[in-house]
Amino acid sequence: MSTSNTSALNDFLQQCQQRVDERLGTALDAEIASTQLLEAMRYACLGGGKRIRPVLAYGSALAVGGELAAADNAAAAIELIHSYSLVHDDLPAMDDDDLRRGKPTVHKAFDEATAILVGDALQSLAFQIISTDRDTLCANNRLAMVQLLSQKAGATGMVGGQSLDFEAVGEKLNIQQLEQMHSLKTGALIRCAVLLGGMSCESASDSQMTALAAYADNIGLAFQVQDDILDVIGDTSQLGKPQGSDSDKNKPTYVSLLGLDEAKALANSLSDKAIAALQEFPGSADPLRELAAFVVSRFH
Amino acid sequence: MSTSNTSALNDFLQQCQQRVDERLGTALDAEIASTQLLEAMRYACLGGGKRIRPVLAYGSALAVGGELAAADNAAAAIELIHSYSLVHDDLPAMDDDDLRRGKPTVHKAFDEATAILVGDALQSLAFQIISTDRDTLCANNRLAMVQLLSQKAGATGMVGGQSLDFEAVGEKLNIQQLEQMHSLKTGALIRCAVLLGGMSCESASDSQMTALAAYADNIGLAFQVQDDILDVIGDTSQLGKPQGSDSDKNKPTYVSLLGLDEAKALANSLSDKAIAALQEFPGSADPLRELAAFVVSRFH
Repeated sequence: MSTSNTSALNDFLQQCQQRVDERLGTALDAEIASTQLLEAMRYACLGGGKRIRPVLAYGSALAVGGELAAADNAAAAIELIHSYSLVHDDLPAMDDDDLRRGKPTVHKAFDEATAILVGDALQSLAFQIISTDRDTLCANNRLAMVQLLSQKAGATGMVGGQSLDFEAVGEKLNIQQLEQMHSLKTGALIRCAVLLGGMSCESASDSQMTALAAYADNIGLAFQVQDDILDVIGDTSQLGKPQGSDSDKNKPTYVSLLGLDEAKALANSLSDKAIAALQEFPGSADPLRELAAFVVSRFH
Repeated sequence: MSTSNTSALNDFLQQCQQRVDERLGTALDAEIASTQLLEAMRYACLGGGKRIRPVLAYGSALAVGGELAAADNAAAAIELIHSYSLVHDDLPAMDDDDLRRGKPTVHKAFDEATAILVGDALQSLAFQIISTDRDTLCANNRLAMVQLLSQKAGATGMVGGQSLDFEAVGEKLNIQQLEQMHSLKTGALIRCAVLLGGMSCESASDSQMTALAAYADNIGLAFQVQDDILDVIGDTSQLGKPQGSDSDKNKPTYVSLLGLDEAKALANSLSDKAIAALQEFPGSADPLRELAAFVVSRFH
């Protein structure tokens, strides 16, 4: 990526992060009677995080000719689902992590009961936000977005993948089984973010949505392969969590199955395929193209 | 209540329980790749439970002149939210209960990680079902139902009330604070069930919905007062959980604040008010009327 591309991408990332933080901040300043719950929800969601999923949603909205504002609710909803999953993943009964984004995890900063409730409340809030009225989008589109988010967040998506991941500890998975697990655990929400961004724009055509879906499939898997690579080569200060924490738990990874070099080659190839899927889009899809390169070059 | 009314109510309860069990069974037989997750979700939701919230939704649909089938998705969605909240409530970090409906709780029958994921997946499934296409209901109504369910399930509803409940352990609440907590923790979902049943029927008028809302407010509170009464006078085999388990934890209850007799009088008065709110409805609201009496006469 050239320096000017990097700079344009950085501007875009920052703009998207500000937008989604503002939307989340508004949503988390509402009539929540329990002050402890509100504080912990804000702790879990605000001030940190790469916001990759919101950025993808915004990028898709631009790609199909929409404006950034069109994707505000989709971006916030998908980030809320992601945030809730992190809070629950970190619990002692799950991954038992003390650090997240360099800060104590929610159950460490508050307590376990609060962390459970925070995750539950963030999930509800995601569905509240994505179903909220916005004059420019018809009820049918918004309803389709609720349906997609619920499918990709739950047992047929992210949570299903997390359960497969638990079932796999200590098991020998082959590459197809590993792909199925990741396709649900991480890929489902990444794909969902890309699609929701497009669906946020009434004007998106069927062929545009088909191209976005192909982009989404490849970027979703690339993201997870890169996560596995970072788990091996990253260090704790960059990752915000102890390096090697997945491989320590005897979980199968792309690196353990393919070796580091082949895993890197796979990530790059998936990124290239994602970019190729966008060939019929004009320059409006440049942020998505740059994001595909960014995903496999990121350090954390 | 006369014997014939009791018999009619029993028939209605059974019919509603069968309908919602069938809808839940279909939803929990879908493309869920993790067999352990699917099994645990079915364990948490099927085969047991009074299905009071679904029954209220069905009763409301009938009251406004709709058919039972109209409320199938609303009934299933609200029961999924209720079921997920029980699974998470029972966790060691929350109420730490080993028994639920006379069976081992989900984290006892499976494990804690599974119980956390089951709750998360059931919540997503609720939003999936309530947003699902049904030819007879317009997208605007379904979207309004998603909005209501998300508000009443999350931090501004049930989860917010649970958090207030935790904050209240060992504290001296007055009756207003206790009402606020219960109004969110238990009342929000009960009210939501009544309203969703009405909203499931395109034909429901504004005045019908206003009457249902008044019914819902009173029945919601009556339900919680009766829960507190049962916690004192019930026994373990009837409740399916150890008697006195709430008062043991030094949580304030209506009985501890008002005494047993006054709590019983309050429950009956609320039930009467709920029935009075239905005065403009014809005989189609008889199931709701009988349910109002049933709620304060139930033994578990």
